Amino acid sequence: MTGPFAPPYHLAVFVSRRTGEDAEGYGETARLMLELAAGQPGYLGVDSVRGADGLGITVAYWRDEESLVAWREHAQHAVARRTGRERWYEEFVVHVARVERAYGFTREP
Amino acid sequence: MTGPFAPPYHLAVFVSRRTGEDAEGYGETARLMLELAAGQPGYLGVDSVRGADGLGITVAYWRDEESLVAWREHAQHAVARRTGRERWYEEFVVHVARVERAYGFTREP
Repeated sequence: MTGPFAPPYHLAVFVSRRTGEDAEGYGETARLMLELAAGQPGYLGVDSVRGADGLGITVAYWRDEESLVAWREHAQHAVARRTGRERWYEEFVVHVARVERAYGFTREP
Repeated sequence: MTGPFAPPYHLAVFVSRRTGEDAEGYGETARLMLELAAGQPGYLGVDSVRGADGLGITVAYWRDEESLVAWREHAQHAVARRTGRERWYEEFVVHVARVERAYGFTREP
């Protein structure tokens, strides 16, 4: 779990359902994309969960609109997204948003 | 999976880790909150996933800032959040954001 960060910042919510077939290369590509994203300017963090039913939510946090767009246009990321549409995802929805407020809670020991 | 919706709209990302103990009432409350939220003005939808490791991400989508804030101030929701801090969550982070772009993909049959 990452954040909260100091607003304003940007996030992309990626909600997806896997095809459940043709998974070759999926895990390796997913790991590589997380590693590549983490090295980009403006990267703040990522939260990612996939449930037993195949539904997944990944949220990527970026310092500003520019860094989020630069990651979208990264060449290796574009190739991975195309393969995702061709092979790995049954459906997905992306929401790109500007964060206005953020807060966190941690249980006291 | 819900959306995409026509921007602008608002969303709240809730990333949480369960305590793994004292779960009494958790499931029932979680279901009741989803049901209550769905009946509020401005409600667009919810996506929610919890992974095997206890990390969960819930994203709630609202027509505007006003409907999102009204849900935060709903009395039964406020009670549920307090119980969550007292008993169910080890930690959580909330990001409230205004959606600027959204798009979806569905595999052709």
